[in-house]
Amino acid sequence: MKDKNSLRVAIAQVNSTVGDLHGNAVKISRYIEEAKNYGTDIICFPELALCGYPPEDLLLKPKFISDNVNILKNLTKTINGDIVAVVGFADGEFKKAYNAAAIIHNGQIKGVYRKNFLPNYGVFDEQRYFSSGDKSLVFGLSDFIFGVNICEDIWHPEGPTKSQAAAGSKLILNINASPYYATKFKERQAVIAKQAKTNDVFVVYANLVGGQDELIFDGQSMIVDNKGRILARAKAFAEDLLIRDLGIPVSRLKHPKKVIKIANLLSTPKTGLVIPQKPKVLEPVAEVYQALVLGVKDYVVKNGFQKAVIGLSGGIDSSLVGALAVDALGNENVTGVFMPSRYTCSQSQEDATALAKNLGIKFVTISIEPIFRFYLLVLEPHFAGLGRDTAEENLQARIRGNIMMAFSNKFGWLVLATGNKSEMSTGYATLYGDMAGGLAVIKDVPKTLVYKLAVYRNSLHQVIPERVFTKAPTAELKPNQLDQDTLPPYEILDAILKAYVEEDKSLAKIISLGFDKEIVNKTIGMVDKNEYKRRQSPPGIKITPKAFGRDRRMPITNKYCG
Amino acid sequence: MKDKNSLRVAIAQVNSTVGDLHGNAVKISRYIEEAKNYGTDIICFPELALCGYPPEDLLLKPKFISDNVNILKNLTKTINGDIVAVVGFADGEFKKAYNAAAIIHNGQIKGVYRKNFLPNYGVFDEQRYFSSGDKSLVFGLSDFIFGVNICEDIWHPEGPTKSQAAAGSKLILNINASPYYATKFKERQAVIAKQAKTNDVFVVYANLVGGQDELIFDGQSMIVDNKGRILARAKAFAEDLLIRDLGIPVSRLKHPKKVIKIANLLSTPKTGLVIPQKPKVLEPVAEVYQALVLGVKDYVVKNGFQKAVIGLSGGIDSSLVGALAVDALGNENVTGVFMPSRYTCSQSQEDATALAKNLGIKFVTISIEPIFRFYLLVLEPHFAGLGRDTAEENLQARIRGNIMMAFSNKFGWLVLATGNKSEMSTGYATLYGDMAGGLAVIKDVPKTLVYKLAVYRNSLHQVIPERVFTKAPTAELKPNQLDQDTLPPYEILDAILKAYVEEDKSLAKIISLGFDKEIVNKTIGMVDKNEYKRRQSPPGIKITPKAFGRDRRMPITNKYCG
Repeated sequence: MKDKNSLRVAIAQVNSTVGDLHGNAVKISRYIEEAKNYGTDIICFPELALCGYPPEDLLLKPKFISDNVNILKNLTKTINGDIVAVVGFADGEFKKAYNAAAIIHNGQIKGVYRKNFLPNYGVFDEQRYFSSGDKSLVFGLSDFIFGVNICEDIWHPEGPTKSQAAAGSKLILNINASPYYATKFKERQAVIAKQAKTNDVFVVYANLVGGQDELIFDGQSMIVDNKGRILARAKAFAEDLLIRDLGIPVSRLKHPKKVIKIANLLSTPKTGLVIPQKPKVLEPVAEVYQALVLGVKDYVVKNGFQKAVIGLSGGIDSSLVGALAVDALGNENVTGVFMPSRYTCSQSQEDATALAKNLGIKFVTISIEPIFRFYLLVLEPHFAGLGRDTAEENLQARIRGNIMMAFSNKFGWLVLATGNKSEMSTGYATLYGDMAGGLAVIKDVPKTLVYKLAVYRNSLHQVIPERVFTKAPTAELKPNQLDQDTLPPYEILDAILKAYVEEDKSLAKIISLGFDKEIVNKTIGMVDKNEYKRRQSPPGIKITPKAFGRDRRMPITNKYCG
Repeated sequence: MKDKNSLRVAIAQVNSTVGDLHGNAVKISRYIEEAKNYGTDIICFPELALCGYPPEDLLLKPKFISDNVNILKNLTKTINGDIVAVVGFADGEFKKAYNAAAIIHNGQIKGVYRKNFLPNYGVFDEQRYFSSGDKSLVFGLSDFIFGVNICEDIWHPEGPTKSQAAAGSKLILNINASPYYATKFKERQAVIAKQAKTNDVFVVYANLVGGQDELIFDGQSMIVDNKGRILARAKAFAEDLLIRDLGIPVSRLKHPKKVIKIANLLSTPKTGLVIPQKPKVLEPVAEVYQALVLGVKDYVVKNGFQKAVIGLSGGIDSSLVGALAVDALGNENVTGVFMPSRYTCSQSQEDATALAKNLGIKFVTISIEPIFRFYLLVLEPHFAGLGRDTAEENLQARIRGNIMMAFSNKFGWLVLATGNKSEMSTGYATLYGDMAGGLAVIKDVPKTLVYKLAVYRNSLHQVIPERVFTKAPTAELKPNQLDQDTLPPYEILDAILKAYVEEDKSLAKIISLGFDKEIVNKTIGMVDKNEYKRRQSPPGIKITPKAFGRDRRMPITNKYCG
């Protein structure tokens, strides 16, 4: 051992799967064995690592909680040697459950910390499931005292971090399942650094990684010293085992009372540890791109699929989704379907074909014309004397949706929908048409960011034809149609949508920011009126502070405007 | 005045609309004027009557809360005369809002009670929006003391009812927005009666009425005396103004401290009041039927529609939905569309035609055959060598969905989807096909109850042809298909689904109830596997203790089985 007073800590930044209790336990075991090989003293796993996060209403099944407790007990028996493992699990029982961390050593659970602060905002519903813990336990390894707390706990200045530090902790192990949105790691880092410095403690911040329905957990776990300096950071968007000697100067404190003694200071001979370089922090656009790739991969794979199918229109949205799908699943697992109508221009066909070729994916062309004609024919007697309108436009999108679903049903491929957040907000998309699919990959990505992501992807290796960036966006559902006939320019639209959808600003407030009154009014009206469509849309990957879905729970029936 | 010591109380059981602050205020005003004509001393409105319930994330808009407070202030100025009005509204401000009741007299807000107990289970997310009040105010009209509290508050034995009674209250005004499920009023009645008796107080229980997205508020407000006896009950599923002289013997108590004095005992001359008969309590099946009628009516009308369109198959589900739609909207506002394919038998056509005739609705027949043939044709090269399967079955359902949506888009009719809870649970329905629509009317109604509801409807006036009850259910998507080829008999299926979906019982527990292991296993597997479909289904009307939607929040990505 290099230094008897220097603790070697590890963060196992694992990708758990919700409900896969056995699989998660096996993974935890494997990481513990691996960490032991490196002479690790303490290893931390993320929040609810054993049952996955968020388990949502699985927690209302009494057997789910008891199964998870039993698996923890079995896992505990297998944890031997000098290592201390901190494992997130659901403690307690039905109607009295806790979001908890077990502190395990030598085949025994030495203590259990129960989360004090339960978030119940945004995507979080923790007060639906959990009771609050009210203790700030500290643990002793010989004279070395540390505290354990969970996620939200460390964001509260008067929370357990403070009391654990006051009880002599030199180190706080804070385990997390902190959902991603763009550049969120900076917010976390600021809070963790501040808490570390304020309380004069090292902080080991262990975050979950992986996709779960609409959420991405980005990892980016970190170790921060008692001055608030980042000592080490784990990978973004990938599993990682981060190990670090803290070199904390341990003074021979007299133990305060109420320290749960785990063991004497650990005696595994330690060899010098090669500290991995801090992973390069990703640029914001690259970060979002990687988040989306992980989101696609985990949604597809964790739901038992292997292959995906995408309707390619030759436009920017489906081009980006195609590239994301290939990066997530491999080009051998992606099929692009091009479905022209009478309104499809030849450039669209050329661009879709070129994209598919560049991506190296299977490419299929199916004209929707004959089917469309028969719909028009059977509806003619009922629509007699009425002009063409969205009824006929939507029919085209819905025929395409049906064809995509037929491929899905026939071959077991997951349909990736290609609508972006600007469309999803304004209802500029067809329910059961282009909105059809298992996952709406860029549902939370505004159109202006779609372009930036596409530029980024092309900067790695050009796959999206140049013309896709320069031509005016169009749904091609009627002659000479352009998005901009119906929607304001995307730069303006996206700014208004951010203010209204993500920041809950009022009409008057948005106008006061300098936007045209009529445009703001129209935009807000479209957002409000299309809640019913979003309620039936596929899940999408959250990358902004407020996504549609669990994050934004608006009534459909709603007469408020303002 | 009959008796200076006899208070005359009123419950204004109003149908508020979420977000319609102005409209709700106008309605509240009207009821107050009406009650004044009857010499009412105190009138109660339901929980959040001013902004509607539940406003969900509208409460995260700072302006929504301030708008609602301002409208309350304006409303207050108009409330004059001797009457005291108790009006539910959202108090406070953004990030510090309260579910509150204003006690208004003579143009002034005399006091505000803030809900202490905030439900955060089932369909409720109140801790997402509100802070808890911590006071149990009591109010004095001369020497007569009463307390006000809100919904959940009265369900807690140690809650404000107890402390308000201890502070001298003879009467508790408990205002509610209690969502309906079958026979729930019995549960409420038992709790209210017990609290009244235990605390020796009269209770005026004012409930909301109306539909809001997936929720129905059934009204059935009541007045209970201090022995727990029901003195009066308001209508079910309709607005009502219930007025009653309480005849409480008021002893000349010395005021305890902390009573907010509102006024001297009221002096409006009272004439004898004709107490309406207690409305007949509805039989359980009739009650559900009425709930569904109100749910359809309010969803359609509050969302700005007038007419609805339904795909009629000649089966029991669409027949029931047709009848419900007519009872909710009137036959002149309902269109039935029959869409036969090669697999449709002549009996289906006869039964659908007869139903439409009996209901007196517009009836349209559109064969899906030509369209279906062209889908098969364009897909043939891609599906070469593969047999027919669900891909082709679902195509038929999706063509029908498209036709329904074309009618919706062309004429502005709302599509009512016809899938029942047994199908919704097991995924025995086609996403974007028969699941397409604005409202899934019987989404929370198990198939066995569908039959009972249909029998009940026919008992009023026969509209559903007799054969619809006796023929075996079939989706008619392939030759000789019967539901029972894929699903267990509905009596067994529905019992298993109730245990699993509504009661969260485990596999082992359900088997121990006497069901066949293989059937239970298969059923549970179907439920779990089809979460993705339900996530994209239209809203449906909650009539059971646990409905799909906000009430049951299961992850899609989920490896737990048990």
